[in-house]
Amino acid sequence: MSDASSEACTPKLPPLLGEIPPVWTRRHLLDIESLSADEINCVLDVAQQFKDAGATAGRRFTPLQGIACANLFFENSTRTRTSFSLAARRLGADVVDFSSSGSSLSKGETFIDTAKNIEAMHVEVVIVRHATPGTPHLLSQSLQSSVINAGDGPHEHPTQGLLDMLTIRQHRGDLRGLTVALVGDIAHSRTARSNIWGLKKLGAHVIVCGPPTLVSRRWEGVGVEVAHNLDEILPRCDVLNLLRIQFERQATRPFPSVREYALLYAMTGARIRRAKDNILIMAPGPINRGVEVTPEVADGPHSVILDQVSNGLAVRMATLWLISSARASHRT
Amino acid sequence: MSDASSEACTPKLPPLLGEIPPVWTRRHLLDIESLSADEINCVLDVAQQFKDAGATAGRRFTPLQGIACANLFFENSTRTRTSFSLAARRLGADVVDFSSSGSSLSKGETFIDTAKNIEAMHVEVVIVRHATPGTPHLLSQSLQSSVINAGDGPHEHPTQGLLDMLTIRQHRGDLRGLTVALVGDIAHSRTARSNIWGLKKLGAHVIVCGPPTLVSRRWEGVGVEVAHNLDEILPRCDVLNLLRIQFERQATRPFPSVREYALLYAMTGARIRRAKDNILIMAPGPINRGVEVTPEVADGPHSVILDQVSNGLAVRMATLWLISSARASHRT
Amino acid sequence: MSDASSEACTPKLPPLLGEIPPVWTRRHLLDIESLSADEINCVLDVAQQFKDAGATAGRRFTPLQGIACANLFFENSTRTRTSFSLAARRLGADVVDFSSSGSSLSKGETFIDTAKNIEAMHVEVVIVRHATPGTPHLLSQSLQSSVINAGDGPHEHPTQGLLDMLTIRQHRGDLRGLTVALVGDIAHSRTARSNIWGLKKLGAHVIVCGPPTLVSRRWEGVGVEVAHNLDEILPRCDVLNLLRIQFERQATRPFPSVREYALLYAMTGARIRRAKDNILIMAPGPINRGVEVTPEVADGPHSVILDQVSNGLAVRMATLWLISSARASHRT
Repeated sequence: MSDASSEACTPKLPPLLGEIPPVWTRRHLLDIESLSADEINCVLDVAQQFKDAGATAGRRFTPLQGIACANLFFENSTRTRTSFSLAARRLGADVVDFSSSGSSLSKGETFIDTAKNIEAMHVEVVIVRHATPGTPHLLSQSLQSSVINAGDGPHEHPTQGLLDMLTIRQHRGDLRGLTVALVGDIAHSRTARSNIWGLKKLGAHVIVCGPPTLVSRRWEGVGVEVAHNLDEILPRCDVLNLLRIQFERQATRPFPSVREYALLYAMTGARIRRAKDNILIMAPGPINRGVEVTPEVADGPHSVILDQVSNGLAVRMATLWLISSARASHRT
Repeated sequence: MSDASSEACTPKLPPLLGEIPPVWTRRHLLDIESLSADEINCVLDVAQQFKDAGATAGRRFTPLQGIACANLFFENSTRTRTSFSLAARRLGADVVDFSSSGSSLSKGETFIDTAKNIEAMHVEVVIVRHATPGTPHLLSQSLQSSVINAGDGPHEHPTQGLLDMLTIRQHRGDLRGLTVALVGDIAHSRTARSNIWGLKKLGAHVIVCGPPTLVSRRWEGVGVEVAHNLDEILPRCDVLNLLRIQFERQATRPFPSVREYALLYAMTGARIRRAKDNILIMAPGPINRGVEVTPEVADGPHSVILDQVSNGLAVRMATLWLISSARASHRT
Repeated sequence: MSDASSEACTPKLPPLLGEIPPVWTRRHLLDIESLSADEINCVLDVAQQFKDAGATAGRRFTPLQGIACANLFFENSTRTRTSFSLAARRLGADVVDFSSSGSSLSKGETFIDTAKNIEAMHVEVVIVRHATPGTPHLLSQSLQSSVINAGDGPHEHPTQGLLDMLTIRQHRGDLRGLTVALVGDIAHSRTARSNIWGLKKLGAHVIVCGPPTLVSRRWEGVGVEVAHNLDEILPRCDVLNLLRIQFERQATRPFPSVREYALLYAMTGARIRRAKDNILIMAPGPINRGVEVTPEVADGPHSVILDQVSNGLAVRMATLWLISSARASHRT
């Protein structure tokens, strides 16, 4: 079926990428918790190579030409869905968008049947966001397609964790020995979970910090430091990751007022001046200016918030390439 | 304008496909009722060739490169819209999505004006789903673009009929002499109509079976057997096509309860055991598990439900290629 | 990174287009008001070349391959969004769609932060429609990406103005000395503003005509003739551009009834017979048949309404190509 001219149209990956590293054998990306440090570093290395090669800024390699990806997003998303779509297209793949409205789910179809139908249309990669934790895992057991978790309720959001780690690595070189604080709504944050598992695997010291209603003491059981006073831990931190207060996931307000929250936990210019000189300010976005971070800090020299967004594209390209290559080479 | 390198990037159809068969002269696909048996077989042959050549599983041929298709969907759809989108992209075409919300229709524009505007943007193929029977026929008279009916109210859904026939043909080789029962909501089903016309043209014996409120005696007038008792006809059937109860199209409930409907018409394991050994269980989907079919049957060895979805991609690729080729060769 | 085969797959622009004209240095298209006559003619020339070369009817040139464009539409749109999407794809670019629903804006993110996030994903061109005048200008000051105004409230809609001028030029050759009347809802029409600035720069005499509640005398201050009686000015007009009554932007009805409006301002067959023989009837669409124009006129020989839609594709391709080329050559 293939012919010489068709081959010529599909530039292969350049030598700097070549074969996928032997450590990568997975055809799904479901969470960070089950990845090894070597697997995490593999994704970060490939993402960095894509970025250095300019692949994130133009369609230079098309190793996934003819591969179809489906965005199955059952929760609102702007940046993540767009980031995955652009990542897939940058690699030459086709992308189809699904949403819960306008779909067969409103006609009584089960979620698994919807997914199996999409798979039957020869969709190789299903990118799923769902309010129910474990949905991507369930799908991965039912489908032959590859499954990427784009956020499952408060459980995990692995590509967010990976892009956060890539951002820190770019600025600090190595995560070992760094102190990284996740500040804010730990209880409802899949980003927090993906960061906690990943940062610990890569050797960082992790602090979770926020009001007691949003930060459980149980995290101490897995070697995470729990703090409720940001000002006390601030001088020790190399990185602050400021999580959004997810009002939409909270049945009751977990603190008296947004103003009080901001007083205690918002990253302000005054707090920056009490922190390490080279502290990195991160936020998974979307940010609520004036709640978890002031404009002075969000737009200031310590902020790497837009680097994170840019790295999201690289990490998603790396993920798509790795899991597709593992499928093609029948590693799993 | 074209140059050698551009040519090289557009692999032509391989010899196994070559020119479109002389029998195909249409630039629209509006219904099955007006197709000849030869025309139906032409679509099925081309679809099978696409499938055998691996074209449904990757972008191998791009005969429609530079062709723009528009999905004009004025009713909810997941699988059909996605299937058409993937089919078009697999052939190299561009696809734009339309929906009734967010469109000029809400500003007072007529349906035909909307369509003419899309056509004026050099859209060659308009894929339309609409609640009003005859909408695609109306469009085909107003537009120079090709029109594909993706479902017009309870009237027809020709690509669904074609994919159902392709699925039977793959499993039985020939439809002549087979007994195919369409079970359930015949009254509101465009899938039923497209199947009835097509199956009869290809020589099958067709039974429509369901409660009298959903299955009219008038079908006897066109040579279709009408039955109200599934258990009586079951032993004679080679194929059962289980239509979804379309609650959203029914002003009043046409039977006392879903439970009673399922008792009389659901395909269950017990019924499978009273059927022919090689009976094929089909359903156009989305399926309501426990209503028209039990999970045991839907996921069992007789079910070809996911084959249908996969064949939908092949049939839609064949349709897009045939009508575009007929346009290009000025057959009509 | 690029290799010979990849080069071969990206046909360069043919000699007839070549380098972008020296007059074009802008990397945004925000309005017509700030363009010179030479700049307007540059866009129209390039658009005409694209059209003559058949580029609007197929993907012949792909100078924007690997470029990512984002549609940021915060108001309903069918034709404009689709026209931009097709224009971008015809040139080989990738397009991602944004909408206000389902986006981070509902999570409290600011508009500029949303845009900066999209930019951080290496989106080179942001096409924005927003109800607030000046939004595209604001964006252009905050982003490194190119910004195209696809309509900002009642302010401007520059590609609409350009496509209107291209349509007149195709039928009359030169705009100098022509009398062009904009009829209807001038007060709420961004199309009117973009036409007024552009037509005057190209040497046309412009009349704005409609009920006093919708047509202000202040336009006389910039050299535009103001009229309230269509029948009085009709015999002098070479072109009529019939603006839609934008009911959705009007808090109170600006005239007693739609019937009365139609009586005074609708373009009817009777009025056509009192107009110049070669009068051009234009409408930016979507049209309300029976309000600003009767079907006899909309579908009659003087109507160039669908030419406008087709020219919209050409003008948007030209705009995308010019601003992207200006970016690439660091002209600004």
